[in-house]
Amino acid sequence: MSLHEVPTGTKCFDWVVPKEWVIRDAYIKTPSGETIARFCENNLHVVNYSAPINRTISMKELQPHLHSLPHQPDAIPYVTCYYKESWGFCITDRLRKRLSEGTYQVYIDSELKSGSLSYGELYLPGKTIKEILISTYVCHPSLANNELSGPCVTAELAAWLQKYERQYSYRVIFIPETIGSIYYLSRHLKKMKKNTIAGYVVTCVGDERAWSYLPSRDGNTLSDRVARHVLQHAVSHYKEYPFTERGSDERQYCSPGVDLPIASIMRSKYDTYPEYHTSYDNLSFVTSRGLGESLFIYKKILEVIESNTRISYRVLCEPKMSDRGLRETTGKRGSANSGRVMMNLLAYADGNNTLLNIAEKIGEPVWNLYHSVKILEKYKLIKIKK
Amino acid sequence: MSLHEVPTGTKCFDWVVPKEWVIRDAYIKTPSGETIARFCENNLHVVNYSAPINRTISMKELQPHLHSLPHQPDAIPYVTCYYKESWGFCITDRLRKRLSEGTYQVYIDSELKSGSLSYGELYLPGKTIKEILISTYVCHPSLANNELSGPCVTAELAAWLQKYERQYSYRVIFIPETIGSIYYLSRHLKKMKKNTIAGYVVTCVGDERAWSYLPSRDGNTLSDRVARHVLQHAVSHYKEYPFTERGSDERQYCSPGVDLPIASIMRSKYDTYPEYHTSYDNLSFVTSRGLGESLFIYKKILEVIESNTRISYRVLCEPKMSDRGLRETTGKRGSANSGRVMMNLLAYADGNNTLLNIAEKIGEPVWNLYHSVKILEKYKLIKIKK
Amino acid sequence: MSLHEVPTGTKCFDWVVPKEWVIRDAYIKTPSGETIARFCENNLHVVNYSAPINRTISMKELQPHLHSLPHQPDAIPYVTCYYKESWGFCITDRLRKRLSEGTYQVYIDSELKSGSLSYGELYLPGKTIKEILISTYVCHPSLANNELSGPCVTAELAAWLQKYERQYSYRVIFIPETIGSIYYLSRHLKKMKKNTIAGYVVTCVGDERAWSYLPSRDGNTLSDRVARHVLQHAVSHYKEYPFTERGSDERQYCSPGVDLPIASIMRSKYDTYPEYHTSYDNLSFVTSRGLGESLFIYKKILEVIESNTRISYRVLCEPKMSDRGLRETTGKRGSANSGRVMMNLLAYADGNNTLLNIAEKIGEPVWNLYHSVKILEKYKLIKIKK
Repeated sequence: MSLHEVPTGTKCFDWVVPKEWVIRDAYIKTPSGETIARFCENNLHVVNYSAPINRTISMKELQPHLHSLPHQPDAIPYVTCYYKESWGFCITDRLRKRLSEGTYQVYIDSELKSGSLSYGELYLPGKTIKEILISTYVCHPSLANNELSGPCVTAELAAWLQKYERQYSYRVIFIPETIGSIYYLSRHLKKMKKNTIAGYVVTCVGDERAWSYLPSRDGNTLSDRVARHVLQHAVSHYKEYPFTERGSDERQYCSPGVDLPIASIMRSKYDTYPEYHTSYDNLSFVTSRGLGESLFIYKKILEVIESNTRISYRVLCEPKMSDRGLRETTGKRGSANSGRVMMNLLAYADGNNTLLNIAEKIGEPVWNLYHSVKILEKYKLIKIKK
Repeated sequence: MSLHEVPTGTKCFDWVVPKEWVIRDAYIKTPSGETIARFCENNLHVVNYSAPINRTISMKELQPHLHSLPHQPDAIPYVTCYYKESWGFCITDRLRKRLSEGTYQVYIDSELKSGSLSYGELYLPGKTIKEILISTYVCHPSLANNELSGPCVTAELAAWLQKYERQYSYRVIFIPETIGSIYYLSRHLKKMKKNTIAGYVVTCVGDERAWSYLPSRDGNTLSDRVARHVLQHAVSHYKEYPFTERGSDERQYCSPGVDLPIASIMRSKYDTYPEYHTSYDNLSFVTSRGLGESLFIYKKILEVIESNTRISYRVLCEPKMSDRGLRETTGKRGSANSGRVMMNLLAYADGNNTLLNIAEKIGEPVWNLYHSVKILEKYKLIKIKK
Repeated sequence: MSLHEVPTGTKCFDWVVPKEWVIRDAYIKTPSGETIARFCENNLHVVNYSAPINRTISMKELQPHLHSLPHQPDAIPYVTCYYKESWGFCITDRLRKRLSEGTYQVYIDSELKSGSLSYGELYLPGKTIKEILISTYVCHPSLANNELSGPCVTAELAAWLQKYERQYSYRVIFIPETIGSIYYLSRHLKKMKKNTIAGYVVTCVGDERAWSYLPSRDGNTLSDRVARHVLQHAVSHYKEYPFTERGSDERQYCSPGVDLPIASIMRSKYDTYPEYHTSYDNLSFVTSRGLGESLFIYKKILEVIESNTRISYRVLCEPKMSDRGLRETTGKRGSANSGRVMMNLLAYADGNNTLLNIAEKIGEPVWNLYHSVKILEKYKLIKIKK
């Protein structure tokens, strides 16, 4: 994986790469001398992108700079103030309610300086330049499901892909959300538009509570069809959201003129679960089982895309299967059922249908056809158009 | 509005403009000398198009010429005898049951003479010659919902259109049903086929009991899509009838070879409510609220058509909304929701989608997008193709 | 009808016409000297295509060659051993359970010799070379619903077709299943692909228990649309199976590269009823009423195809029906209903819609339109494009 630095001030479409935020320490001292909201204890305590400050202020002045959640009194919220110089602290509502009148010292040792936006990129060449995009984001890794689960599953998936006998090429990117994908698109759009046949934003893939699916804007791309097929056949239940409830980098990938076929398979979708954007989105919510199942599903999806070739039957009428030992020679009631999947596969192998089309028409998961494809190819009964 | 007279005997397609019917007086004198079914009391008492008569006849001879409604004993039915010289009277069933044997004088002072068919036409030019047809009928205005409500709402709509900054031209016609639209089409078909993008037959728009929708024959024209969109979002419930239950001038406008995109939005549809074609279809059934709501819906429909331009987003990736004050700079859970309609509008503004397409895709009524369109145009983020 | 003999060894696509099986006698003699499984009593007792045998064997040796149905203890199953020299007997499970240890004589006086495959063919020319295929099979006529009902109904249908004023030509074939249709296609494919507009496999048409429908592979051919239309309007309930549950000669007719529009209307579908492929599939299950209703439905289907012409309305706007005595001259509430079917037919007679399209759009069975078509043609209001 190559790491890239993009300098502050770099223009990309309607945006400019912002200053880099450096944060070293932060806390509040209460009238009684207690130190609270200490950055070194939990980095959510400081509003992200807060400007430096070191002042003694009244409680009245402090209050507009405090963020807490009355309905989740023990959670610390995650708050940002991108693109406007400001400052603030995030604390539990229980603590906030205990604060008394008096003089408070607010201290943030931060810096907004000319620096760079960092991202990682891994390009895995396949047998064709047609490629699949795997995009995940790395801008607030203190939160577990949204977002650290994304880079974790993506890293495992990339390791697996490196060993996989790839037909397609893979573009795997680890970027900050929004500005990262906008910058990346501004530099690679032409090539990506030409080559990308499918892709996914990998985010919120760590819990076990739900399966969620956010389609591409088009709604019926290869990414969408494969995602729906795999979810239908491999998980017990999933919820499909409308594209209007998107919230991550598919906002850029699917924007007019960009028009990439990018969808997103998630467990509990951002903005739908109570732990979202609070200190509760932690390792009690995210589990190794949740992460493992997500990895399993993304692998299955990529396998389905890789196997999705057009298939032509090479003979007219049904082949004589019994000559090839592919059918029992004694005909009794029910004996036609053995080998039914194989015969159904042949019936739709008209050279126009891909393996996914065939699987959908005969109501089987694609992976139930892999074995039949191998046998039929061995007997030269079908031809695969890669 | 210009008034036109078409002489008796004028040929139009398969039809001929009939003689003009003049009716001055009519009544029946009973054996006891009572005068009933007096035209001057209620003009429904005479079968429309009755030939003149002045005879003394037995009750037996009279009966086949009487019309009443056994299940609505106090209602006078509305009956016609177009295209065949005949005569008759319409009375309440209660009165009919009271008639005794004896000699009756039947008197109709009418005339079927060479005259003319009258209609009104208002053409309101817009910025383009592409036009919208508003058609209503004026052949039996003694009945309130079907039909006087139609010309009333149409007149108000036309007055409003005169002041409206029209993109499209409008053809507003007040014609007798059937023969009027057939004559009108026979003289304007070529131009109307070339220019008409949408249109409606305005009838039965006066009561408060229901909302009804009769699609065009095609069923999916702009008229249909806009009508369904407005009804779905602006009224609590409506009933869509199949085209096979049509009954007014859309029979002509949608006939093969004419093929105009004409639908009809009604309140209680003709032939479905008990008061239809009786003396009960009066000002107890039709209300000013009913008429006003219909006018409101037709205005909304025309506004949606007028605003239904193709919209192109002019930037790649999402714009930086916060730079334009269109988004909060503090990011908390839920803060993406403000401005979501605007972002969804942009996501579909690919230059192919019209505003109606976009509204349908994002599940909003078109009118919820008008404000966003204005703001986005002001900031030069979108381009409108009129 | 012409009869054809195809010699053993003839190649056809992936297959070869097999040896002919001659069976003269067969039985088993039990240790106690009783003769059971006598071919002359029920020809199901011998596994079809059994090689000759005349041996004395132990019960242990006999058992693998016996077939019975534990869950239907009084039924004799129907078993075949095509394409592999073998032998066997089919008996009731009740009898099998009674067999004691000891020595059995098994006797089958059969022959597998160079012979021929026999089939019958009837070609009925119409006014056009466009043709309809009626295919039925004749390889195990000892079973009543599957299969003798098929040739019976087909024979009656063919007799009826001979007298029918045919627009289309008909190809009616009586073939052995699978190898018969494969051979037939191997010799007539080019012509059939060019001319066949519809067709059906007639099988399982004798019982009264159900109506079943198996679509073509395409699923939306003329055969499919007509079959669904007729079943929807003429029977109270029917079950549509997916093409993946096919089991007869449509397996060949619809295979890739053959691609004929062949569907199948059945009563109880093969492989779904308990009597299937047992001695219970007999004349208690098949009834003359069941056969008669199937014949009636197939006739209706062919009539619908024959009548399915494009229809053009020849006038603009509605015609003046009253001038032709096709509408009452007195207009009262409800009087528009008489003649509504005729007016609806005209409304869709745009020259693109066929009679079936029109019937589907106006929600009427096609046969309800036949009378209107005649009248409208007589009055020169429509033009029929054959």
